[in-house]
Amino acid sequence: MRQKLFFTGLIVMFALSAIGHFAGFDMTLQFIISAIAIVFVAGFLGKATESVAHYAGQRLGGFLNATFGNAAELIIAIFLVKEGLFDMVKASITGSIIGNLLLVLGLSLFAGGLKYKQQKFNNQLAEHNSTLMIMAVIGLFVPAVFVGAEHFSLAKDHFLSLAVACILIVSYLLWLVFSMITHKDVLSDTEMNADHGEEPAWSKGTSIILLIVATVMVAFTSEWLVHTLDTFTERFGLSQLFVGAFVIAIVGNAAEHSAAIMLAMKNKIGAAVEIAIGSSLQIALFVAPVLILVSTLFGDTMDIIFTPIELTAIGVSVFIAKSVSRDGNTNWYEGFLLLMVYIILGFAFYLV
Amino acid sequence: MRQKLFFTGLIVMFALSAIGHFAGFDMTLQFIISAIAIVFVAGFLGKATESVAHYAGQRLGGFLNATFGNAAELIIAIFLVKEGLFDMVKASITGSIIGNLLLVLGLSLFAGGLKYKQQKFNNQLAEHNSTLMIMAVIGLFVPAVFVGAEHFSLAKDHFLSLAVACILIVSYLLWLVFSMITHKDVLSDTEMNADHGEEPAWSKGTSIILLIVATVMVAFTSEWLVHTLDTFTERFGLSQLFVGAFVIAIVGNAAEHSAAIMLAMKNKIGAAVEIAIGSSLQIALFVAPVLILVSTLFGDTMDIIFTPIELTAIGVSVFIAKSVSRDGNTNWYEGFLLLMVYIILGFAFYLV
Amino acid sequence: MRQKLFFTGLIVMFALSAIGHFAGFDMTLQFIISAIAIVFVAGFLGKATESVAHYAGQRLGGFLNATFGNAAELIIAIFLVKEGLFDMVKASITGSIIGNLLLVLGLSLFAGGLKYKQQKFNNQLAEHNSTLMIMAVIGLFVPAVFVGAEHFSLAKDHFLSLAVACILIVSYLLWLVFSMITHKDVLSDTEMNADHGEEPAWSKGTSIILLIVATVMVAFTSEWLVHTLDTFTERFGLSQLFVGAFVIAIVGNAAEHSAAIMLAMKNKIGAAVEIAIGSSLQIALFVAPVLILVSTLFGDTMDIIFTPIELTAIGVSVFIAKSVSRDGNTNWYEGFLLLMVYIILGFAFYLV
Repeated sequence: MRQKLFFTGLIVMFALSAIGHFAGFDMTLQFIISAIAIVFVAGFLGKATESVAHYAGQRLGGFLNATFGNAAELIIAIFLVKEGLFDMVKASITGSIIGNLLLVLGLSLFAGGLKYKQQKFNNQLAEHNSTLMIMAVIGLFVPAVFVGAEHFSLAKDHFLSLAVACILIVSYLLWLVFSMITHKDVLSDTEMNADHGEEPAWSKGTSIILLIVATVMVAFTSEWLVHTLDTFTERFGLSQLFVGAFVIAIVGNAAEHSAAIMLAMKNKIGAAVEIAIGSSLQIALFVAPVLILVSTLFGDTMDIIFTPIELTAIGVSVFIAKSVSRDGNTNWYEGFLLLMVYIILGFAFYLV
Repeated sequence: MRQKLFFTGLIVMFALSAIGHFAGFDMTLQFIISAIAIVFVAGFLGKATESVAHYAGQRLGGFLNATFGNAAELIIAIFLVKEGLFDMVKASITGSIIGNLLLVLGLSLFAGGLKYKQQKFNNQLAEHNSTLMIMAVIGLFVPAVFVGAEHFSLAKDHFLSLAVACILIVSYLLWLVFSMITHKDVLSDTEMNADHGEEPAWSKGTSIILLIVATVMVAFTSEWLVHTLDTFTERFGLSQLFVGAFVIAIVGNAAEHSAAIMLAMKNKIGAAVEIAIGSSLQIALFVAPVLILVSTLFGDTMDIIFTPIELTAIGVSVFIAKSVSRDGNTNWYEGFLLLMVYIILGFAFYLV
Repeated sequence: MRQKLFFTGLIVMFALSAIGHFAGFDMTLQFIISAIAIVFVAGFLGKATESVAHYAGQRLGGFLNATFGNAAELIIAIFLVKEGLFDMVKASITGSIIGNLLLVLGLSLFAGGLKYKQQKFNNQLAEHNSTLMIMAVIGLFVPAVFVGAEHFSLAKDHFLSLAVACILIVSYLLWLVFSMITHKDVLSDTEMNADHGEEPAWSKGTSIILLIVATVMVAFTSEWLVHTLDTFTERFGLSQLFVGAFVIAIVGNAAEHSAAIMLAMKNKIGAAVEIAIGSSLQIALFVAPVLILVSTLFGDTMDIIFTPIELTAIGVSVFIAKSVSRDGNTNWYEGFLLLMVYIILGFAFYLV
């Protein structure tokens, strides 16, 4: 039943979004329609990925989940890169990271914590996640400081950005090797395995076709959404930064949001934390550097230099998420604190 | 006997301070007298609060202790706000935070550690305290970075300051709910309960009257002290910053200092840590934001923007206090390190 | 056999280095010869120290090991101070710290982790090391922020530098008291004790004579090496910063590198971590402040103000090393991440 409603919504919103785009609806209306459509197609992409992952076996499945999990964000961002909107790309990367670490994780811990007094998860994974978060912050922070303090030429700036991007991607890929092959047993969480027990709705062949269809739909809807942003931003007097960091990031992560919160309320807090933190790690260690390589292919390298306020937002989010998740033990108040930090950053970005 | 000596000292010093103020003693003498008087009246306020807390039952009692504990600092600071001495207010907030985290905590761990090889306390509380300290740092840090990097207008600056102030106060109030109601059992430390076993010296009615008397005395003495600061600062060539961060902060926290050190030497290190860290959290999450709201009532909003050196001082204090207290295990060397950081900051502020 | 080869290499390289210096070989050749010679004489100094330490008993032995361990770096740096090359001194201090925390520790964990799935060591020591690392960062960070933000005069700058230097040295000496006398048992690691079981090769008298000889050889070779740096740097278009932070640091720490990696591969990861982190702590808490005092004796005080990029490099290294070593549990991926951060910093410094 719920399944049926979802697919009806998916098709209706996708069609409306297409019609709106080609018929030239009012830009604000187009923005609203395609934003809702993105939520549906991202959810569809998530379902298809999970189904393919089921047939692929746990190891390859985990990899597929990890890689396709942020596909929506990646595709939106590639369209922004193509249009040369580098500032908005970086703002949306920032927004995705802080959205996952503060909003998704915060809502999950808060909702889960209201239902269960204390929720526990595997400590070892939390330790590794926190080291990787520090790696991600270093990767974004070091170039900014060096380029800022030493007034690097554009060539040096681009060289350093590409070098750091490659190092981050290699670190991410070896993290997959580490966590899925060499040290799989150390990091596994019984809850998470339990989660994979459900039967998938589709056959193997159908799953693969649906994955392709979903990816194409995400690509189209993303372009239609990006197309409306200029007018929308101008009309409401919002900064590119705020739209990138809050509007696009929330829309693009809608699927993760609902999944993580639902898991938390089923007391599967380990899986919820993994989605929230894992997703932000993918953005920082994989999506961001891939976008830099992609921009080079488009002929105009985007550097990896984030602004001081973006770095501050990422830095404080990582810090408090790390502090909250470190002991493998969560409660409603920790979720509440994460949400408060998100609201502080929301006010600050809105005022810029 | 000790009790009697204390009250004699209290009355003599308070009277001397009043005479000094109205008879127009030499300013340096006035400063010295009222500084000593503050130490006595703050101690008196502490005793009265504890006694009222005893009758109010543990939950409400804890709240009263938490709220009145920094009443002296709050009242001094309100007088400074009224006089428009915003820089000195912020310096004294900075000084209170670092004074509690470095001087009070450092002396407690050092004194306790000389007597007992290792002292242990509840780990869970340390984890939460450390997350709250990070929240406090974020609340003070984010506005400074955004306002500094983006050259906010005064209106935006004030709006952001008020928003952050409200969020910090709400976070503090919910922390009380969390730690005293919903998760009281998780955070309780047997030592600390043991500490509440003593019989109070006064009846319920007397306690309430004494609490009111003590608060009034603190208010008067604070005004007399603040009144001397301008001349005193000028005469000794000290900066407002140094006087606020070191002189006022040490005077205003004298009661906590002696209480925490005495507890540490009785091997009640959990209670000592709670006083030191709890007090600095109250300053950052409650006193500082309340002062911003109060300044708005006086018609001239004080912003929440601390200077880079104040933020550095707060940041490094939080960092090292967090690192020292995290494992719920302390020794003399950890106390010594905190004191060394305090001395480094003291030199640095003195030279400004 | 291996012993014999080592001493042949030592004598040949030392002699070649001397000949090169006095006969005025080509500067690049002189640089290469004396760099190789430094590796040998530093290794010789290490062996002699260990042998003397054996006869001195564990406590005094530990102290000797700790103090002579970085003797090579200290002697090289004193020659640089004498020549007034303050920027290169600070770069080499930076390089030694990050080299130990990232390269030595990274290679050790990586090599050990390839052989053993998980390696464990004493948690308590890791906690204390991490607090000391924060102390070291604070000691270098606070003066830089205050002097930078408040435009201190040269006199104030020097006063603050000397004050911080003294505080760091006292902290380091009391750390030796703490870790070797008052809390020796808490911090001891069974693996490390096992390591001291080997019989020394030389008698007591021979050991002392060899220690003196080795120190003199290090002093000479260091001067010959420093003498070539100006020409070498210029010829290859390298910055003083890069040469100091990467070339000199790697050469000066060669002995630690090989020792730590060999221990890690014997599954004595606790001893390997202790060498890497202990050595970087000595540099920050002892060698750096001693150099400031030494510069004052030479008549021209070197301040303790590191550049923003040096502080960034030290800060991020401490952060990730702390995160990796905190749980007393290591693997190949953690070593890999440290190496990646080293490479990022290497690129960044090279481009300056």
